[in-house]
Amino acid sequence: MYRPEIKVLDCTIRDGGLMNDWYFDDDLVSDVWTASCEAGLDYVELGYRANPELFSKSENGPWRYCEEADVRRVTNDGDTGGSNTKISIMCDVGRVEEEQFIPASESVISMVRVACYVKDVDKAIHLVNFCEGLGYETTINIMAVSHALELDVDEAVQQIDSETTTDAVYVVDSFGAMYSEQIHHLVDKYRGFLSPDKEVGIHCHNNQQLGFGNTIEAIIHNANFLDASIFGIGRGAGNCPMELLVSFLKNPKFDVRPILDVCARRIAPLQKELAWGYHIPYMVTGTHNRHPRTAMAIMGTDKESDYCAFYDLIAAEEELD
Amino acid sequence: MYRPEIKVLDCTIRDGGLMNDWYFDDDLVSDVWTASCEAGLDYVELGYRANPELFSKSENGPWRYCEEADVRRVTNDGDTGGSNTKISIMCDVGRVEEEQFIPASESVISMVRVACYVKDVDKAIHLVNFCEGLGYETTINIMAVSHALELDVDEAVQQIDSETTTDAVYVVDSFGAMYSEQIHHLVDKYRGFLSPDKEVGIHCHNNQQLGFGNTIEAIIHNANFLDASIFGIGRGAGNCPMELLVSFLKNPKFDVRPILDVCARRIAPLQKELAWGYHIPYMVTGTHNRHPRTAMAIMGTDKESDYCAFYDLIAAEEELD
Repeated sequence: MYRPEIKVLDCTIRDGGLMNDWYFDDDLVSDVWTASCEAGLDYVELGYRANPELFSKSENGPWRYCEEADVRRVTNDGDTGGSNTKISIMCDVGRVEEEQFIPASESVISMVRVACYVKDVDKAIHLVNFCEGLGYETTINIMAVSHALELDVDEAVQQIDSETTTDAVYVVDSFGAMYSEQIHHLVDKYRGFLSPDKEVGIHCHNNQQLGFGNTIEAIIHNANFLDASIFGIGRGAGNCPMELLVSFLKNPKFDVRPILDVCARRIAPLQKELAWGYHIPYMVTGTHNRHPRTAMAIMGTDKESDYCAFYDLIAAEEELD
Repeated sequence: MYRPEIKVLDCTIRDGGLMNDWYFDDDLVSDVWTASCEAGLDYVELGYRANPELFSKSENGPWRYCEEADVRRVTNDGDTGGSNTKISIMCDVGRVEEEQFIPASESVISMVRVACYVKDVDKAIHLVNFCEGLGYETTINIMAVSHALELDVDEAVQQIDSETTTDAVYVVDSFGAMYSEQIHHLVDKYRGFLSPDKEVGIHCHNNQQLGFGNTIEAIIHNANFLDASIFGIGRGAGNCPMELLVSFLKNPKFDVRPILDVCARRIAPLQKELAWGYHIPYMVTGTHNRHPRTAMAIMGTDKESDYCAFYDLIAAEEELD
């Protein structure tokens, strides 16, 4: 038995781009798009849309901006080959200008996902309503919820429900810090605050090897928008692996084989260089509910393998004065 | 809040030995023992005890046999440095002789774990009762339960309960095939059939990155004997990583730091050679509920990276005639 409401979103290029400043070759992005269509995925997120005045084009590849022409080029003008797969982009609140959007009717992009911290929910609501007005599907992804006061999260989700027609609100475990009980609690909470026409989404990080397990937990508690990436590529420890999620879901529209094929040809070979995945420094930031930036800074250096020194550094920050 | 009944067992040497025929150097085994004592673990499983007439000593290291002298040598006669850590060994039904055991009072080994398939539960009961008679703690680990008929499992667990005084009966996901719902179901079932003086144990494999997540699920459902290994070392995709489990548990007797230290010095450096962990061939056998042997056979060969060919091979075995 499967749940037809479930939508799967591939964030291979968007979250993976955090590891290489979005310098993916066109043909790699095209291959990910084509494989995702063949696999029957619901959305493929091809990157962020960011303001080039804030993020220099000399330091970032095209999937940092997702300009219409670039997206059209790698998707052959949004050609799905017959599947219902749609294109998504993500925006961070405060890092994009309204002038960067054209009406959805003129774009191959179907969905704009707005990421924010809970303190910026008013700005996210404003941007989502602007994008809804242009005809886009939208979601709001409240990041780093493991660092937020629960009262603030409650108010934010209730406000989103009353002030927007967004399609989904995501529980985002940015630091890979949460266990199944926290996922269970937050998904139930979001589901309780949202109207029936709004879905709960889940985006997990894999610092504690719980990306897939926590996604299953969210599914059990009625999250219907599910993020994953091929071979788990993503910032730091990475994300829920798409090949695991698609193998788990029973909806006959999904087919894992095209994912395995593009993984073998395109994504797995990147891992040696980009080094996402389970590494002890990422595990330590995860178990301490910290941003992975301190771990990312030592990866590839001699310090990477001195696990105790890194553990002591992170643990010391938690000590009482 | 922690549950004082919880016992953590390190199977680094025993399950990891399946990847190198138990050829671990003495000083590595000593370091794992010392670190586990410092970390406050309850049991350290130093290997199998197998009949050397069935498994040649020319093809296996000493931790395939766990002879008393070898165990004493690497543990300094069972010196725990003040912790309550105990030594465990595992036996496969039919692969060990009763003559290989001395009374527990003369041994540094405290616990004998008996592994069997459900069809061999009578033999396991016989061996467990023999070892209990010698004064050992025991467990019965029913392997490959994802391939068993549920009626047979029910009868086996009830029979173990009525015919032994064993300390725990393990749910073993030998193929890394189970999701949280199956773990939940089986742990509840075992718990329901067993008397209050017998615990439920959990031993997971990591083919779908669910080793840790499913161990948490088992804990939630009152499994109290928990298996893990340092950095997840073990057959194929490996096991639940000890550093994650110890970081999760709130019992103040546990300390993750010695685990991280021995992981950095001794275990992580082995991974390049032994190649346990998340690899697509292991993921494919896991999602198809198959023994990992076909995946292990192609690891390190050209076939390892042709994910679709391996997927097609395994999927074809499931097709209708």
